[in-house]
Amino acid sequence: MTDPQAETGPRSETDPQDAIDAAADAAGTDRDLRIHERTAGEVPDPGDAIPFIGAGPGDPGLLTVTGRELVEAADLVVHAGSLVNSELLEAYCADAERVSSVGKDLEELIPLMRDAHEAGRNVVRLHSGDPAIYGAALEQMDALEHEGVPTTIVPGVTSAFAASATLRTQLTLNGVANHVAFTRPQGTTLDPEDDHIGEFVGMGDVTTCIYLGTHAIPETMDRLLEDGHDPETPVTVVYHASWPDEDVIEATIATIGEAVTDAGYRASALVVIGDAARKTGYERSYLYGDWANRGSAATDGTDAGEADD
Amino acid sequence: MTDPQAETGPRSETDPQDAIDAAADAAGTDRDLRIHERTAGEVPDPGDAIPFIGAGPGDPGLLTVTGRELVEAADLVVHAGSLVNSELLEAYCADAERVSSVGKDLEELIPLMRDAHEAGRNVVRLHSGDPAIYGAALEQMDALEHEGVPTTIVPGVTSAFAASATLRTQLTLNGVANHVAFTRPQGTTLDPEDDHIGEFVGMGDVTTCIYLGTHAIPETMDRLLEDGHDPETPVTVVYHASWPDEDVIEATIATIGEAVTDAGYRASALVVIGDAARKTGYERSYLYGDWANRGSAATDGTDAGEADD
Repeated sequence: MTDPQAETGPRSETDPQDAIDAAADAAGTDRDLRIHERTAGEVPDPGDAIPFIGAGPGDPGLLTVTGRELVEAADLVVHAGSLVNSELLEAYCADAERVSSVGKDLEELIPLMRDAHEAGRNVVRLHSGDPAIYGAALEQMDALEHEGVPTTIVPGVTSAFAASATLRTQLTLNGVANHVAFTRPQGTTLDPEDDHIGEFVGMGDVTTCIYLGTHAIPETMDRLLEDGHDPETPVTVVYHASWPDEDVIEATIATIGEAVTDAGYRASALVVIGDAARKTGYERSYLYGDWANRGSAATDGTDAGEADD
Repeated sequence: MTDPQAETGPRSETDPQDAIDAAADAAGTDRDLRIHERTAGEVPDPGDAIPFIGAGPGDPGLLTVTGRELVEAADLVVHAGSLVNSELLEAYCADAERVSSVGKDLEELIPLMRDAHEAGRNVVRLHSGDPAIYGAALEQMDALEHEGVPTTIVPGVTSAFAASATLRTQLTLNGVANHVAFTRPQGTTLDPEDDHIGEFVGMGDVTTCIYLGTHAIPETMDRLLEDGHDPETPVTVVYHASWPDEDVIEATIATIGEAVTDAGYRASALVVIGDAARKTGYERSYLYGDWANRGSAATDGTDAGEADD
């Protein structure tokens, strides 16, 4: 399928950064009325907007029903390269044009998607996991909307949830972990003073999930040891959660660095620090059985106990 | 469809708490070898195990493909009552027996699911959101496995991701929010010293997502004000994210309490504290455009930049 506009190259000289800055300025002063236009469950018809879809952790079955329908209806799928399982692309969009976004900047991606949309093709943008977690969806959406192309988000399953499923546990667990942090280690894109891993671990009842940190596990663990954290704290690494080559390494702050180095993983793994990964010593939750005598369930409304979300 | 064993009542006198304690004791000393048996993408055939499925935030389209297939194949669906959108049940399991778990303790739920499974019926357990986040899945799974019934987890989309989609934002956003916390406020099930909301907000670059806290918004905000947090910090409440009656209230630490009280919400809303909900002043991410000159992408491996998950 050809795209006549794409052949003439980018039509507009607009700098995507200008669009982002303009959107940011507007957000600082104006309400974004679009957020009231539709619920997260309502999705425009294919062709009316470009959906930014969370592909989920990897397995094709962990894409959402809506995400699958949109990907199946797509003529052009711009995807996150090796971060999206090729089995998913084969299963749902084998006949569509597929373009990897890896190595492309906004100046290339935005005209590509805009021109295809304006030529009447169904375009979807497929991010790994959920676009809200360490995605780069919003800058593309703002740039596209600045070009007059409507966009929307279809949420997805993040890799931490697949990792938790593999580990047969929960990231929150009564009496073990009351909170969850999604975080990343200091590095090229995060200054050392914004690295909060030690603070999360120090709270003692937080399950700390490190994204984008596979390559940095040894130095991350060294910093935790230097800060005096218990070397025996459980650390579990789940590589490629839900992919056919999924792998689990169970160790501690003291030992995980060497274990992951030996395994040869430099990317695409989630690091889970905390007791929840080992599910030791948890207690029955509030609404089931004996805990029901501990207080008044009514004061928590329907939010109590089983109200997972 | 009748269940001959269910008619005779619970077969076993085993206390589910004993099963949980036994599993916890074992977890403290033994590796859980089951986690290596299959990936999060591989799901047993219906009838071979009871899957604990994350129903997602509410909209039927935000259930996973695998979740939908299992729910459609189910004879008995034990679901989280009003926390799961009835539209989803109507869409995928209108002909199955449907039982709400609300108000039932483990001593009632476990024999119900076990006996149906042993009678050859396809049983699924449907939790709202993802089972890893404030679910009570593991205690049921451990109790069922103790009874000889295999279980598995199918992850789902949590309500925070649907809320983020509705707000047309990301929970992490370059230059605005580097981390995300899923947390709950002190109350019947959380002691005041385990309430970390103030610490998360105080870090300044964390998007704090409060689950199970709709009823407690005014006192939660009062505590933040007493602790000296900026009254103008954005607080956005998303009620029933992705449901037909989804609603968004945008306010601040100083004003959200009254706004939510006026709206009459006491449950089923997610509270998002931080600038990410307003998406003001974010920066282009690493891999797109100018940021590519800032450092060596190679040092982050494929984890860098767009590697959302």
